[in-house]
Amino acid sequence: MTQNLLEQQIRAAGPVIDPPAAKALYAPLLRDTPHGGAVVSDIAYGPDERHRLDVYLPLGASRPAPVVVFLHGGGFIRGDKADRDHVGHYFSRHGVLAVLPNYRLGPRHRWPAGAEDVAAVLAWTRSHVAAHGGDPEHIVLAGESAGAAHVAAATLLRRFHPAEGLRIAGAWLTSGVYNAELELLARRQLGIATPDPRNEAYFGPDFANYRTMSTVAQIDAEPFPLAISYAELDPVQMQAQAGELFARLVTRHGFQPQISVVPGHNHLSQVYSINTGDERLAGRMLAFVRNP
Amino acid sequence: MTQNLLEQQIRAAGPVIDPPAAKALYAPLLRDTPHGGAVVSDIAYGPDERHRLDVYLPLGASRPAPVVVFLHGGGFIRGDKADRDHVGHYFSRHGVLAVLPNYRLGPRHRWPAGAEDVAAVLAWTRSHVAAHGGDPEHIVLAGESAGAAHVAAATLLRRFHPAEGLRIAGAWLTSGVYNAELELLARRQLGIATPDPRNEAYFGPDFANYRTMSTVAQIDAEPFPLAISYAELDPVQMQAQAGELFARLVTRHGFQPQISVVPGHNHLSQVYSINTGDERLAGRMLAFVRNP
Repeated sequence: MTQNLLEQQIRAAGPVIDPPAAKALYAPLLRDTPHGGAVVSDIAYGPDERHRLDVYLPLGASRPAPVVVFLHGGGFIRGDKADRDHVGHYFSRHGVLAVLPNYRLGPRHRWPAGAEDVAAVLAWTRSHVAAHGGDPEHIVLAGESAGAAHVAAATLLRRFHPAEGLRIAGAWLTSGVYNAELELLARRQLGIATPDPRNEAYFGPDFANYRTMSTVAQIDAEPFPLAISYAELDPVQMQAQAGELFARLVTRHGFQPQISVVPGHNHLSQVYSINTGDERLAGRMLAFVRNP
Repeated sequence: MTQNLLEQQIRAAGPVIDPPAAKALYAPLLRDTPHGGAVVSDIAYGPDERHRLDVYLPLGASRPAPVVVFLHGGGFIRGDKADRDHVGHYFSRHGVLAVLPNYRLGPRHRWPAGAEDVAAVLAWTRSHVAAHGGDPEHIVLAGESAGAAHVAAATLLRRFHPAEGLRIAGAWLTSGVYNAELELLARRQLGIATPDPRNEAYFGPDFANYRTMSTVAQIDAEPFPLAISYAELDPVQMQAQAGELFARLVTRHGFQPQISVVPGHNHLSQVYSINTGDERLAGRMLAFVRNP
């Protein structure tokens, strides 16, 4: 299917989140996804069975290579690094070492398990990436959807920082949830079901505490290079989440984040498009990872 | 030109604000804009030459008719009610009495002149609309762009409320600026020029005071029915403004605002489309005005 036809189908569906449909739409393109360098699979970075990560070794890079850690999405309750191999191959092909972790999921594991796992992946990466040809002083943390929520919490809240300080080159957030309280209080307007199968699985049933679990309400990190993006056809909740985070970071916390809208894509298609020749999200991420 | 061709041209141009292009694109459609009832023009509601309003009498309404006050946009420095006659005719045709005011502009008139003028229009409307067949107990304040900024300030900040209380049926905000400080501090990322020809003309040169002039930072009104919208192809600054306002109103001020994205339109085309048979913005506004 041509990119043009693909975009027509995505536009026709509107701002939906339909994982099987998105996967089916991109399956033909991703079957032929070009591979990068070798992959070192299922390295343990913690005691849980979800504490596993894959390392995509960079092709043709002048070593040490810049490093991106990429967290998959899945509404806090599902998702797997294997479904984002195309993201790993994309960065590898462009001389970037990519670390793709799994992380613990709700409802078994609740907030702040995701942020803790990002911190654990960062610690592993800092310690081990040089042995794989990566630069431990050039690590960008990136995530999509729930993965972006976890990266945001782990970087913007000091309680999750390493003792020696965050020391990342930057963070990239695509279409995440940064304000759990907003999704709780605006369920009707945002079309979120009650009970909420995603946020409640991760943030739990104690609604009175949602503000303390809302990253945007608790930011206390010193500024670092940050990029926020969402899709033109993202549900409005993801757009509002990005807008609020951007505005608060700029006006209250001294950040100078980038913000961008990925044209012609929806919440899921934007990520599936990585390594299919569509550079609308991939190209921006790559430029940021190289030069945050 | 068909709506389909029109949408293709709008999409091809991307998230631009190009007043002459938007006006030219819609000129053929608006030349034939269907008229509603009679128009009472240039009623004075204050001492300035810009303190003039037009009343579009409602067609076929069971009196008293619901009332919408609609403030045009123009970046705080330009715009005229005459260019929004199609908005007046649209509401009139659908049995709504429409009040279209001019208001004072920068740089001659600075913040909070716009909010003061909204308050003055509201006072005039409350006192005089019954004589024109409108219901003074069913007034919706609406605005686009700078007009939305003024409506937001006049309704969300108690200092601009009438002594007897706000007592509006609701407010509708399309693609406004609600956080002047954000536009000041994120000029680089938002592609805003320095000096900023719009915000500086209205908010002035005293940047240290921008937070006190940022509606989102000063909200103290009791909740009332409110709807926030922006265009799918609005510049990201307008999207972030809407997202932050929505999030703050929900999580900090007890509001339950609607939020919606107008598909297939940019900042200007969405408003020009009103009364051309395109109901994507018009239809939502009409439904809200009737039943806030």
